[in-house]
Amino acid sequence: MKSKFPLIILLPCSFAAAQTRPVDNLVQYVKPIIGTQRMGHTYPGATVPFGMVQLSPDTDTLSYEQNGAYNKDVYKYCAGYQYDDKTIVGFSHTHFSGTGHSDLGDFLIMPTVGALQLNPGTADKPLSGYRSAFSHSNEVAEAGYYKVKLDDDHITAELTATARVGLHQYTFPASDKSHIILDLMHGIYNYDAKNVWTYVQVVNDSLVTGYRQTNGWGRTRTVYFAMSFSKPFKHYGSKDYSDKQVYRGFWRKFNQEDNFPELAGKKLRMYFDFDTRQDEKILVKFALSPASSAGALLNLRTELPGWDFEQVKQQAQQAWQHELEKIMITAKDTEAKENFYTSLYHTFINPTTYMDVDGNYKGLDQNVHKAEGFTNYTTFSLWDTYRALHPFFNLVQPKRNADMMQSMLAHFNQTALHMLPVWSHYANENWCMTGYHSVSLLADAVVKGNAPFDVNKALDACVTTASNRWFEGVGYYIDKGYVPEDKSGASVSKTLEYAYDDWAIAQMAKKLNRMDVYNTFIKRAGYYKNVFDASTGFMRPRLSDGSFKKEFDPLDTEGQGFIEGNAWNYSLYVPQAPDSLIAMMGGRKRFAAHLDSLFTMELPDKYFEHTEDITRDGIIGNYVHGNEPSHHVVYLYNWTGMPWKTQERVRMILKHQYHTGPAGLGGNDDCGQMSAWYLFSTLGFYPVAPGSDEYAIGSPAIDKAVITLENGNTFTIEAQNQGDNNVYVKQLLLNGVPYNKYTIRHADIVKGGKLVFVMSNKH
Amino acid sequence: MKSKFPLIILLPCSFAAAQTRPVDNLVQYVKPIIGTQRMGHTYPGATVPFGMVQLSPDTDTLSYEQNGAYNKDVYKYCAGYQYDDKTIVGFSHTHFSGTGHSDLGDFLIMPTVGALQLNPGTADKPLSGYRSAFSHSNEVAEAGYYKVKLDDDHITAELTATARVGLHQYTFPASDKSHIILDLMHGIYNYDAKNVWTYVQVVNDSLVTGYRQTNGWGRTRTVYFAMSFSKPFKHYGSKDYSDKQVYRGFWRKFNQEDNFPELAGKKLRMYFDFDTRQDEKILVKFALSPASSAGALLNLRTELPGWDFEQVKQQAQQAWQHELEKIMITAKDTEAKENFYTSLYHTFINPTTYMDVDGNYKGLDQNVHKAEGFTNYTTFSLWDTYRALHPFFNLVQPKRNADMMQSMLAHFNQTALHMLPVWSHYANENWCMTGYHSVSLLADAVVKGNAPFDVNKALDACVTTASNRWFEGVGYYIDKGYVPEDKSGASVSKTLEYAYDDWAIAQMAKKLNRMDVYNTFIKRAGYYKNVFDASTGFMRPRLSDGSFKKEFDPLDTEGQGFIEGNAWNYSLYVPQAPDSLIAMMGGRKRFAAHLDSLFTMELPDKYFEHTEDITRDGIIGNYVHGNEPSHHVVYLYNWTGMPWKTQERVRMILKHQYHTGPAGLGGNDDCGQMSAWYLFSTLGFYPVAPGSDEYAIGSPAIDKAVITLENGNTFTIEAQNQGDNNVYVKQLLLNGVPYNKYTIRHADIVKGGKLVFVMSNKH
Repeated sequence: MKSKFPLIILLPCSFAAAQTRPVDNLVQYVKPIIGTQRMGHTYPGATVPFGMVQLSPDTDTLSYEQNGAYNKDVYKYCAGYQYDDKTIVGFSHTHFSGTGHSDLGDFLIMPTVGALQLNPGTADKPLSGYRSAFSHSNEVAEAGYYKVKLDDDHITAELTATARVGLHQYTFPASDKSHIILDLMHGIYNYDAKNVWTYVQVVNDSLVTGYRQTNGWGRTRTVYFAMSFSKPFKHYGSKDYSDKQVYRGFWRKFNQEDNFPELAGKKLRMYFDFDTRQDEKILVKFALSPASSAGALLNLRTELPGWDFEQVKQQAQQAWQHELEKIMITAKDTEAKENFYTSLYHTFINPTTYMDVDGNYKGLDQNVHKAEGFTNYTTFSLWDTYRALHPFFNLVQPKRNADMMQSMLAHFNQTALHMLPVWSHYANENWCMTGYHSVSLLADAVVKGNAPFDVNKALDACVTTASNRWFEGVGYYIDKGYVPEDKSGASVSKTLEYAYDDWAIAQMAKKLNRMDVYNTFIKRAGYYKNVFDASTGFMRPRLSDGSFKKEFDPLDTEGQGFIEGNAWNYSLYVPQAPDSLIAMMGGRKRFAAHLDSLFTMELPDKYFEHTEDITRDGIIGNYVHGNEPSHHVVYLYNWTGMPWKTQERVRMILKHQYHTGPAGLGGNDDCGQMSAWYLFSTLGFYPVAPGSDEYAIGSPAIDKAVITLENGNTFTIEAQNQGDNNVYVKQLLLNGVPYNKYTIRHADIVKGGKLVFVMSNKH
Repeated sequence: MKSKFPLIILLPCSFAAAQTRPVDNLVQYVKPIIGTQRMGHTYPGATVPFGMVQLSPDTDTLSYEQNGAYNKDVYKYCAGYQYDDKTIVGFSHTHFSGTGHSDLGDFLIMPTVGALQLNPGTADKPLSGYRSAFSHSNEVAEAGYYKVKLDDDHITAELTATARVGLHQYTFPASDKSHIILDLMHGIYNYDAKNVWTYVQVVNDSLVTGYRQTNGWGRTRTVYFAMSFSKPFKHYGSKDYSDKQVYRGFWRKFNQEDNFPELAGKKLRMYFDFDTRQDEKILVKFALSPASSAGALLNLRTELPGWDFEQVKQQAQQAWQHELEKIMITAKDTEAKENFYTSLYHTFINPTTYMDVDGNYKGLDQNVHKAEGFTNYTTFSLWDTYRALHPFFNLVQPKRNADMMQSMLAHFNQTALHMLPVWSHYANENWCMTGYHSVSLLADAVVKGNAPFDVNKALDACVTTASNRWFEGVGYYIDKGYVPEDKSGASVSKTLEYAYDDWAIAQMAKKLNRMDVYNTFIKRAGYYKNVFDASTGFMRPRLSDGSFKKEFDPLDTEGQGFIEGNAWNYSLYVPQAPDSLIAMMGGRKRFAAHLDSLFTMELPDKYFEHTEDITRDGIIGNYVHGNEPSHHVVYLYNWTGMPWKTQERVRMILKHQYHTGPAGLGGNDDCGQMSAWYLFSTLGFYPVAPGSDEYAIGSPAIDKAVITLENGNTFTIEAQNQGDNNVYVKQLLLNGVPYNKYTIRHADIVKGGKLVFVMSNKH
């Protein structure tokens, strides 16, 4: 697929005038289709940077449960779209980008023509329902724009968005039976009981408002909407698919299926009828709100007052261009640019804006709050994103990252659980994965000087969070120095992650001169030692009696005391103290040999085939790049005195794991974490231990990058002579001065300047 | 039962000082127990005038459905309490007063001691659950105060309230196993699917907040709460009774049943544990909000900052005293005073306050609105209350009634249905009964000069409401001049009520000089003629072909074209044009004879035994006083030249239908309509056609009444020589001048003055 959109021409004068040099159209390099096949779990639809609306086609969603049991097939539909599918069910307004569990898919819209069908039908029989066959040859997916031809009814669908409003443009054939369907039952990871309630008002012949409340991954989640049509509908109707348990009372007096303007129930589908001329375009604005339908209407009227689709699309793409320009790269081939700018695109999707234009949003306590002085964000996939995404934001999106920190602190203040978020979305804690990695984000922001909020209160929140004895073995961890496997599963992962998180708290405390906190948590930061089994050389689960668990297979990911990783990978998870880890594991040489084995050994399928998040796509030897726990591992060679191994293997991973095309990602993008790893590594450095202001040096994979910082400085990276064979760093020059370290400080980057890598084919 | 509470002593100085004459303690005459046995459907618990909280014991609630079918037994539990029951389930915070269908019963609290029981148990085996046996000898029910001893666990429960906060005081025995249960599943007219969702936060060791969302008579109803304990609980827990369809996801990681502070689900019960000394009192404040749990907390902290139960009780009873003093009566016996002031109490319960102290409330569109310049009310049982309750308010509660009108207009603006309320509660239209009687309330307020709002917009709302062709046969009514029985059932009731309502709109239009509207609606006001069947002398259902329905039994209430009334009663429903009705029915003499027959004939049981709202208790001959359609009927004798028959029969009805004691009411009090009939009739006049400013003269049943009007005037009624035998009005004197009419104008009353009835035993 090739973008035919000449963005540069569409940039308004003010935009062009502000630039002192000709600016490349970077939007052309963004390929939202990357990751939509197999395991990437990205979506191809339209969104603006960090937008509340992610308007995207769903090719299927499936039910989370089948015959009362978990339906494994639902996993491939985490983002609603799978490239290999032949039909599109419709276009819904909320999608996670790259997650390995899911929710959302709210408010599916589908245009149809002919006899009304209110059921979606099935993929094998698209004519059995409102869904339609489509072909990738008629599909365009750009940053902020999506277009597809719906073959069944010869309708062209185009999508774009503002931050809070999706804009649909449907080009119909001539018909007196044209419909636009609003499916309020549809959802990702749906199942029978997910819809808790829906409420709809048809305010007039072109405006509909309401909400949908669900009980899914988000336990108590309500999304409000306001929907406006460019042309009045001539008739509308609905069908309530609720089971018999929904009480209807005296509402039974009325035929609510036909032009009835106030509806409520668990399972509603609606339709709106039009007469259309050949090629007549009907536009639908669909605004969301986390607070109220009044808020959705306010968002709609504020952000998208007109009906000019092209203009809204231009604005969306200008917004992307503006963000993408934060890093201008020079690369030899288009593929490198597509990988780079699509990664940048993927990192700038989540977390998502979660407040109305007036600052209102619903908090964890289900009350409406107003964000004062910050933009409230949601969708914090923290087990993934603390590693590289938020450190990346501290570099290129510091203002937004600080707002995200404030959003997490608001979460803390609104919940009765005394916890910072673990994995949160839409005013819900969903508890996915392990650790309390919010503290890592806060520490990283504080240590890097990007914390314009009450940092002592933030530290208190971290301490409170890390002191919840009821949380996943924390009580045992505090008392014994490790989580006993017989008390809380995945005990080694938990122990290692808590120890790292505690180190992050200690760094923050040190920066704030809160030495009592520092002393407590720096001690806890060493608890990784308590799960190291010298007899096997691996981290290994211990029981509450102090003994190591007898049965132990360091290659297996299941039931071994780890989560989504085996002992081979997780044993390397001491990012806060590589030197100590290396010593513990037998010294530099032996440790480097262990790493070599990790990358080169052969791992039989049986060891990961039951773990959804780990597939052959994401594996190199026994190193699992497609999932997060090992993302720092390749940089550990730097501590063994063999940095060239970091350099060559980083390049190998970049080559192996990131491609253009729908199948381009080796694993779930995980809200941008996989992409953030790509970006850091391509630029030549990586944050091994967020909470430190040092990055580990790797091997830059582009010729040049100019990072424009929000403080007005620029930091230029030049990789002289780099190429597929020239992956070794022969010399480093920081601001023209030879530089002999394999780390670089964040503070040195944000001062502005130039880092030159002189590359070679020899180390 | 006798109140031992010496209220007069407790009145603070400011209260006493404001009075220039010694004031009787009127609260002592209020007997909330009246109507709690059989059909009254009142509740004995604590509430303040028009308060949001109605904190009252529930002796049972039953399920609305049993084995998939309507459970007839649920009807007796419309108010949660039946006098004959031997056990109390607990104390819940919301109750309708006197309705014939139900909902509410939110947030049941029950104190217990010993082994924890989280199920309520059954009435026949109270020890099987948390409910308790009780005895009326240990029960005190006063205005604003309720007390009972719970025999099972030897706990004394006392209840009082502010407008938005219920206050519980439980006196425990010594125990280390004292519990306070919060049952979030409990409800009136409950059934399996009624609970849509509940959400709870245990904020700290003495504060709990959350909400309960139901789908019952109120289709989409959410009530928020904040609950505060006078003593920290030592432990708490919960149990989720949700069926398997509720998705729990990663929350399964935690034991949410034990000290877990954030809960959500369909069916929750909670408990809070205490150690108690002998006779230790634990108090619970329980605040409600229609907007948010933050609003509930604001209400709690604003209205009830302290923990002084006696003081709150005093304030509640002072509030009642203040309202009751609006009519000071002189009567020979205590029974008359108890009947009068209990009726006054019952009229001052509904509609109920429906906004937070800051004016926030949730509207029909499910958005939070702020009431600007008025108090927002809910619970509009309009088919009942347009007849006498709201006219009564225009006399003695004009400010509140004007606010109620504004509440109805806000409802109109918030719904997409383009309808004023029919029967509304808690931001819901529940569609109970027939007609669009909001227009009668608005017309009555406008015609009586009690409409401090945009009256032209109000008229527009009335016209729009009466023009909804989809509503219950209105389209046919507009086109044909009557509702055809084959198109919409209860067609005669509907036609007659629409015609009256339309007359009311016409009166309002005339007052506003909107003659186009007047002309349209005064024509529609005559449509009652279209359902009169001269051949039988009754109103009779017509079919769409214009013919009268063949099968017709004017005594039957079922399937005859009427709702909750038979042709005998409903044929008299032309309050807007008695003269015309009388002429149509054969002239004054024949009409009077028809009325005589109505009151004296014998109606076999079979004619009403299938109608819940009509029982032998409420019937005199074939005249049904226990239900509303005939409430004006006895006053129609005035138009036949035989006013003495009005006089004697009014007294007969007062005697027959209103008594002290639990079984004192002959039918559902219907949110005060039955009581308002009593009050008007006891005072000697009645609003036959609200929307007119004339009252029909009857026969006063007290010696003297002084009505203190809000404009500062007083209007005194003196009934010289009245008594059980002296029921006939020999002479009338208005302000000392002989008065020869059988009507009196509202304007003449509110000017202040004195109306003397000289009574006699002869007419």
